[in-house]
This record gives sequence, structure tokens and C-alpha cells, in this order.
Amino acid sequence: MKRYFPILDWLAVYNRPTAAADLMAAVIVTIMLIPQSLAYALLAGLPAEVGLYASIAPLLLYAVFGTSRTLAVGPVAVVSLMTAAAVGQIASQGTAEYLGAAIAMAVLSGLMLLAMGLLRLGFIANFLSHPVISGFISASAVLIAVGQIPGILGISAPGHTLIEVVIGIAKGIGGLNPFTFALGGFALAFLWWSRSSLKALLQRRGVRPGVAAVIVRAAPVAAVALTTLAAWGLGLAERGVAVVGDIPSGLPMPALPSLDPALWQAILLPAALISLVGYVETVSVAQTLAAKRRQRIDPDQELIALGASNIGAGLSGGFPVTGGFARSVVNFDAGAQTPAAGAYTAVAMALATLFLTPLLYHLPKATLAATIIVAVLGLVDSSAVKRVWASNRADFAAMAVTIVLTLTVGVEAGIAAGVALSVLLHLYRTSRPHVAVIGQVQGTEHFRNVLRHNVTTVPEVLALRIDEALYFPNARFLEDTLLGAVAENKAIRHVVLNCVAVNDIDSSAVESLEATNARLKDAGVTLHLAEVKGPVMDRLQRTHFLHDLTGTVYLTMYDAMLGLAPQAAQDCRALPRCETAKG
Amino acid sequence: MKRYFPILDWLAVYNRPTAAADLMAAVIVTIMLIPQSLAYALLAGLPAEVGLYASIAPLLLYAVFGTSRTLAVGPVAVVSLMTAAAVGQIASQGTAEYLGAAIAMAVLSGLMLLAMGLLRLGFIANFLSHPVISGFISASAVLIAVGQIPGILGISAPGHTLIEVVIGIAKGIGGLNPFTFALGGFALAFLWWSRSSLKALLQRRGVRPGVAAVIVRAAPVAAVALTTLAAWGLGLAERGVAVVGDIPSGLPMPALPSLDPALWQAILLPAALISLVGYVETVSVAQTLAAKRRQRIDPDQELIALGASNIGAGLSGGFPVTGGFARSVVNFDAGAQTPAAGAYTAVAMALATLFLTPLLYHLPKATLAATIIVAVLGLVDSSAVKRVWASNRADFAAMAVTIVLTLTVGVEAGIAAGVALSVLLHLYRTSRPHVAVIGQVQGTEHFRNVLRHNVTTVPEVLALRIDEALYFPNARFLEDTLLGAVAENKAIRHVVLNCVAVNDIDSSAVESLEATNARLKDAGVTLHLAEVKGPVMDRLQRTHFLHDLTGTVYLTMYDAMLGLAPQAAQDCRALPRCETAKG
Repeated sequence: MKRYFPILDWLAVYNRPTAAADLMAAVIVTIMLIPQSLAYALLAGLPAEVGLYASIAPLLLYAVFGTSRTLAVGPVAVVSLMTAAAVGQIASQGTAEYLGAAIAMAVLSGLMLLAMGLLRLGFIANFLSHPVISGFISASAVLIAVGQIPGILGISAPGHTLIEVVIGIAKGIGGLNPFTFALGGFALAFLWWSRSSLKALLQRRGVRPGVAAVIVRAAPVAAVALTTLAAWGLGLAERGVAVVGDIPSGLPMPALPSLDPALWQAILLPAALISLVGYVETVSVAQTLAAKRRQRIDPDQELIALGASNIGAGLSGGFPVTGGFARSVVNFDAGAQTPAAGAYTAVAMALATLFLTPLLYHLPKATLAATIIVAVLGLVDSSAVKRVWASNRADFAAMAVTIVLTLTVGVEAGIAAGVALSVLLHLYRTSRPHVAVIGQVQGTEHFRNVLRHNVTTVPEVLALRIDEALYFPNARFLEDTLLGAVAENKAIRHVVLNCVAVNDIDSSAVESLEATNARLKDAGVTLHLAEVKGPVMDRLQRTHFLHDLTGTVYLTMYDAMLGLAPQAAQDCRALPRCETAKG
Repeated sequence: MKRYFPILDWLAVYNRPTAAADLMAAVIVTIMLIPQSLAYALLAGLPAEVGLYASIAPLLLYAVFGTSRTLAVGPVAVVSLMTAAAVGQIASQGTAEYLGAAIAMAVLSGLMLLAMGLLRLGFIANFLSHPVISGFISASAVLIAVGQIPGILGISAPGHTLIEVVIGIAKGIGGLNPFTFALGGFALAFLWWSRSSLKALLQRRGVRPGVAAVIVRAAPVAAVALTTLAAWGLGLAERGVAVVGDIPSGLPMPALPSLDPALWQAILLPAALISLVGYVETVSVAQTLAAKRRQRIDPDQELIALGASNIGAGLSGGFPVTGGFARSVVNFDAGAQTPAAGAYTAVAMALATLFLTPLLYHLPKATLAATIIVAVLGLVDSSAVKRVWASNRADFAAMAVTIVLTLTVGVEAGIAAGVALSVLLHLYRTSRPHVAVIGQVQGTEHFRNVLRHNVTTVPEVLALRIDEALYFPNARFLEDTLLGAVAENKAIRHVVLNCVAVNDIDSSAVESLEATNARLKDAGVTLHLAEVKGPVMDRLQRTHFLHDLTGTVYLTMYDAMLGLAPQAAQDCRALPRCETAKG
């Protein structure tokens, strides 16, 4: 029971101090969430109230099923962008079909996450490598930020790629609305200043750090209030400033999503990508925060929790949600102790939906655009690009392709290409494994690469270490390498394959080894194995290979040398230790 | 020059005895090739003469570019089936579009092979693992054989899957044509008998083995001659027996294929699959035969040769070709010494095209169907299925999926699913690597799995051997495993990761190791590495990890134990050798 309902872990010991801490955190998160939920709904191309709806049921459900004590679930920027990209291919913004598709997307990705969780398939998320996900999030953040510029300028520049949006801005800049630009520019400058300088300023004025932090968090609400008042007082809606307008007040009614099979088929792939990206973001945030307090999260249960949250979002008229980085950190810093903080946030959001919406009529959309820009720029991690470039070119290639395609073709193409390229590069690398000729380190029973260490070798024995699992992509490579090495050096009478790094062997490789053994035999060369690991030995024993093998399977390389060139091996062992690396 | 034109290797030393041997082989191969080329063209849904055209230019081009001395290129059953499946989705059999698509398929797959050869991308073919290709060829052979039964019965049963064809036969059996069935049944029985019993019978009657083999090879021609005579003499064409009919005599005129971009796009994927399957078949036949005479083939040059052959096939009105197993073995056994044998075969086929075609008017199609059935049943390898089942369940799964989908859905789905499943199973396996707790084998400096060997361990040192490259699919697994092991056992002060089997490390894994190092540090546990291989060390040196590492990087596991628990390590080394494996 407790495995599937982590709420039972903490509800029994829930007490007043914990509740007080959770309530405080919930107030701060709600202040942050109100403008963000409206803004991310607009980013997804949806009516503003959909953001509010997506901030109620999912939070309650996560509180029941989630294993992270501090994760804040709700609408987030990257997933909203992915929703807009996917749903935009099916229906036009503003239509009932568009909203229906976004709701179906939430339900379908929730069902996928739930199924993955129940089948314990969380490992699938591992295929989003760190460089790909980091590149994807940075590129998405740039795309989102640039996409909000038209909103600040009061112009329209539709498009899903960086180039389309930039061209749209260049074309539309003449139609700039000065009132929108004034409000949006003010909101942007104010938010930027409050984010970068306000906290330090307050602390210099003697405000306690905790209070200063709360004031900084309230800056977006202040921006919303100030610009809404200005728009109302000056009647700017009549002067072409886009405002949020009528938001239906009242809680969302539970409703089934559209069950049109054609729709579900069309959103299958995007829903899978949204699920994966959302899950990876959730787990990495949750693990980072859990580690700070020595708590543990259960990645498979997180799939269930996130799945339930998304199904809840869809059934209550919301769009896909996930665990957001910034909001979770705020929740953590504000002292949230249990997922009850999320439930309190949900209640506060429900109250806002019931009573606050009339006040939001005159809220300029430019203010929300400014909120989004300031929120997402923190996601751009250019240092990660440099770090990956320095350490691993294959990873950098996958990252670069993800970034470039996300910006120029679209979010789905970007993430899919990144994953595909990671896998292909891995397969390419393992298809040409590293093979080292090894020799004995003087004074030891240890064998290392002759190119890197000063080691002793014997002309009639070729000792090779294969640094890869032997499987179909490299089966032929091994055959070519071994036969080539023997053809080049006529002195060789024995080949010893050190299998310490051979982590698995499949049927293709066994067939290849059998062929190699037979051909070496014809050439008068004996094939031996050494340091074969248990799982590999188990597999070999289920084939004829060990029966046909011309040589012996030795426990250690040293045993092999004792068997094939005993004097040389013992002499080398008896020498003083010498292990200088070359070069 | 010689690299791209292997003909230069042998043409300079070409002499009379070699020419005599090649001519003899060419005669025998031609006898076999005439009925097969017609039959495989019909199998591909094409006019019979297309088979003849595909047996001229490709053979000449392979003689110039090929590195195998004995490979016989031309129409083969599996590739013909794949062509029919792919082209059948684009156009109806018998139309000019159908022929045009088949010709374009030959040119496109030729261009793909040529490009792969020039870019030295032969390794791509490795992704067709042995079990997948073996299952695919067996299933295709069954599909082809069953698909020829309607031809023997004189009924029509269209369909691309086993079920469709079987249902078609069941429905159409009432319309069986007794004359067709008599001829087809005779041809089938005769060919089967000559294949299984004729050679032994002749040898018992005192015929020399070489002559007996030639007579057996000529059996299909005899079946063609006998049934053609019967059909002509009895006027069976008027009684509903399908005959080959008019074949235009004269050589094919060179012509450019259709350059319609929509067509090329539609055949892109099937052409890639045909290229890969054809290439894998070619290389494995060529390597098998080359090894018997201690010759070598160059897999990348084979791509170029096969590419040129297919381009030649397409430009001379033919369909995709590849190196056939049965025909190459016949060529080899008949004593072919150089690819000139193939050129002589091409000349003989050209003569047949010029002068023999009027004689083929009354050739019953049922005879060709019988030829195909007998030829392909030799390709079904049911022992491979048992062998793979016994040795490797993951490989068996890939093989079974390939077989089932090839039979029930189609050849493209079968091969694509087999390749995809092979890759996915590999990724799944590496995402949950084998991790062994290791200890010192008494009397040695060697460390092995505590579960499999009687070894000595020290409570405060946890020594783990990770049997996998550390990369994105398993980055999180390592973190969970290490932290879990330390959490379970409070005595542990040091963790030594034996990296002897870690063949590579990517950015995701480095980040994971950095996180693990930091968390172990917080728990008061020091992390050490041992036996890190050169390429992995190079990568680590390009990151901050070695700088942050709390412990030491040791050259050997024994060094690590000497550093962390010197007394225990030396005591164990001094004990008498004891290496009994457990269980």
C-alpha cells in the first residue's frame, strides 16, 4: 500500500509545526504560481484560465502519489511550449479543437506515465542523456524568450521556429503599439531588476533575508498589479493593448476528453516526448532537492504520481503539467516539509479561480510575456555547452544537434534527433571497439596496454584485451582484427584474448569467435581466453564454442602466461616493480 | 588504383589454364542461371526478360570491381521478393510504372551501396545481426515457397503475407487447372528427386563425381525443356496453362530510370533495406568462399562492386541483384578462379537473350515456380532457430519477431523490427549493467566476484566491478547502486570502483560520478578508482572529476587493497593458492 500511496508515509505523523511550515511555503508558491499559470497557458496557446485549472487537481494528486517532499507540480515553460508545438499541428489556436487536443494530450501523456510506472519502465527516461536534455532545455528557453518579444512589442509574429519568429518581428516592428511596449518594457525591466538586485538592496536596508526573499518572490505579483491598474486606469484596452479579458470564474467541471481515435493517434508521439521530457525534469529536480535533506525518491513511483497528475489535469480541463525547477526550489527554500504544501497551494489556486478572476480582466498580456522571459532565461545553461565540448565530442554532437534542430525545426525534431543521435553514436563507437595489445607490468601479475605502459611481452604469444561487449555490431570487427594481427606477425603461436572487459556476448559474436578459432587453427595458431567473467562464461557454456576451442580458458592473464611462457612470466614477476606509464 | 579496381590484381597474371577453368564454371553457372533469372523476375512481379537483363551488365561490372574471386552476382530469391513487396505498394503488376519502379529501385540501392562504399560505411551492415538475418532469410524462403504454390496449381492467389496467400489458395483451389498442375507437379517432383537422389544414383552407376554434379545442375534446364516441349506439343497454352509467352529478343538498351522525386522518396526505405540485406548476403557468401582458399575480400570494396552492379542492372533495364549463395557455391565448386568466370557467364546470358528467347515461348510458368520452390527450400535453416534459442534468449526474441513479422506482416516490417529490437534489447541490457562485489583470490593479486569464487574481502572496503561502459542509459543506475550499497552496510569506509570493464564514459556518467562522489563524501565514505583504462582516463582528465575525487586512482586492484587494507591484502597474497569456484 505504502509503495503506491506515499502519502501514508507522512500523513500519520503530520503535526502542527509541519503544517505551519507547509502553509507558509504554499502562500509563497501561490504568489509565484498565479501569474505563471496564466502566462504558461498563453504560451501553450490556450485561454488563461486553463493555466489555473492545471494548478489545482494535479497538485492534489501529486500530494497523494508523489515521493518527493518538496516538488511543486504545475504548468512549466518547456512543456507548455511542446504542447503548443504539437497541438498547433492539429488545430488552430482559439478553437475548441485546439483546447480539446491540449486536454487529450494531458490525459494521454498521463496514461503513458502511469503505464510506465506500473510496468517499472522508468529506465526509458535514461535515454534522454544529460547533454541532450540540457541542450534541449536551453534551446527551448531561448525559443520561448524570443517568442515572447512580439507580446512585449504589441505585435503579432506567429511561428514555431527561431527564424520564423525573428522574421515575424522584423516584419511587424512597424506596427509596434507604444502603450503595450511601455507596459511590457516596464514589467520586463522591473522583474529583471527585482530578480538581480532587489534582494541585495533590501538586505542592505536591514530587511531580514527570509523576508527579503518573500518580497522578491512577490515582484511578479506587484508587476501584475501595477500594470493591471495602469491598463484599467488609463483605458489602455481601447488603445490596442492586449489584455487577458474575461476569465470564467468558478472551478473547472470534471469532463472526459475527446475520445476521437484520429486525434489520439495524431498526438501519440508528441505525448510520449512530453511525458519523457516532463518526467526527466521532474526526477532530476526531485533528486536534487531530496539529496539536500538526505531523503530518497522512488523514480518509478514518480512516474505514477506524474501520470496521475496529468490525468487529473486533463479531466479537470487543464493541459500537461510537470515538476518545475524554479517553483520547486522556491517551495524547498520556503520550508515546505511535506507534499501537503502542494495541496495547500491547490486550495489557494482554487480560491483564486473562484474570486480573483474578475480582477484579472485588465491584466496586460505583455506583463505575462515579461514574466515568462524572466523565468525562462534562468534555464539557459551556456556553461554546460562549453563543459561538454571540452570533455566529450560525441556528447557535444548530440547536444549541438538538439539545440540547432530545436531552434530551427522545432522542439519535437530537436529532442528526437538528440536521442537518436546519442544512440547511433553509442552504437557506432561500440562497433569499432578499443583493442589493446597487453603485456606484463614488471614485478606484478598485472597486464596493461603496451602503448601506454612499459611492459614485458613474449614474441610467440599475442595477448589482446578487447574493451567492449562482443555483440552484433562488432562481431566482424573482432574477426578482422584477430586474423589481421596474426597475418602480420608470423612469430605468433598463441593468441590470448583477455576478456576482462567483455561484459556480454551474443550469438553473432559466438559465431564469429567460432569462425576465428577455426581459421587460427588452420594457420597453426592456438586461441586461448583469460579472465572470462561469469555471465559471459555462462553464455559460452550454452554453445559449442568451448568444446571446439583449440586452447584453454585461464582464470587470469598471469595464469595464461605461466602456461604459455612460464619462464618469461616468472622472470618478469621477480623483477623489481616498474610501472612507469609511457608518454 | 588497385584498391578501387581489383580487376588489375588478377588481369595481369591471367593465363590459359585459369581461363579454361573460368570458362567451364561459366558454362555450368549459365545453365543454372537461365531458368533462375526468368523465375526470379516473375517472383519480383516483372516480365521474364528483366531477369535476363539483370544477369548481364551486373556480372560484367562485378568482374571489374569485386574482390571475391568466386561470387556469382545476379537476381536472387530474397531480394526479388523484397522488390515485389516494395514495388507492389507503389504500382500494379504489369504496368509500366511497376517496371519503372523496380528499375529505379536497382539504381537507388546501387547508389546507396556505392556511397556507403566510398564513405567506408560497411560497418552499418553489422546492425543486421546473425540471428535476425538468418531468421529473415528462412522466413522469406517459406514465404516465397508458399507463394509459388498457386503457380503450380494454375490458380491466382495474390497477397504479400503467408495468411493472405494461404487463404487465397484455399479459396482458389476449386479452379485448379489440371494441365498446369500436372506439368508443375512433374517439374517439382523431378527437380526434388534430381536434387536429393540423382547424384548418388549416377555415382552408383559409375559416373565420375564431377560429371554427375554437372548433370545434376542441368536438371532444371531438363525440366524446362521437357515441360516446354509438352506444352508446345499438346497445345496446352490454349487449355489455360500459363506460359512465358513472347520475350523480346535482343539486348537491353541502356536507359535512364525515372527521375520522379515522389517515386524516389517512396522507394527510399525499401531500397535501403534491399541494399543492406543484399550486401550482408553478399559479404557472408564471399567471406565463406574466400576463407576456403585463404583469400581475402575487402568489405568496403564489395559495397562499391555491388553498388556498381545494381546501377548497371537498373541502367540496362534490370532489377536489384546481389551475390547469391547457391550460385556462388556452384561457381566455386565448378572451379572458377577469377571474376572472369562471371564475365563469361554474362556473355553467355547475352547470347541466350539474343537467340534463345523464341524457344521459351511455351515454357510453362509452373515449371519456373517449381524451380523457385526447390531453390529456396535450401535456405530454410531451422537448426539455427534451435541453436539461438539454446544460447541466447534476447537474440532468440529478435529472431522470432523477425520471422513472425516477415511471415504475417511483410518483409520490410520483419527486417526493420528485427534490427530495431536487437538495438533496443542491447540498450536495455546495458542500462542495467552487471555489477559484482569482488574480493581477492587467495594466493594471488587477482580479484573476482564474491558470489562465484572463494575470495577474501575486508569489511571496511567495498570493492565493486562495473561490467559496462558508463554512459547515459546506465548513469542513474550506477548512482543508485553505489548509494544503496553504502546505505545498507554501515561498516564501509571506502568504495573502490574497479573500472577494468568500463570501456567508455560519457558526460552523463561523469556528472553521475561527480554527484556520487559528493554524496559519499557527505556520508563519510571515500571513493577510489582502480584499473581505469587509458581511453577512460583520457576522458576523465578532461573534466573536474579527478580533481574533486575524495580518494585515489590506483593502477591495480591489488594496489588499492595494499593502500586501504595492506595487512589483509599481503596476508591473502601469502596464503597458498586457492581459487575454487563456487557452486
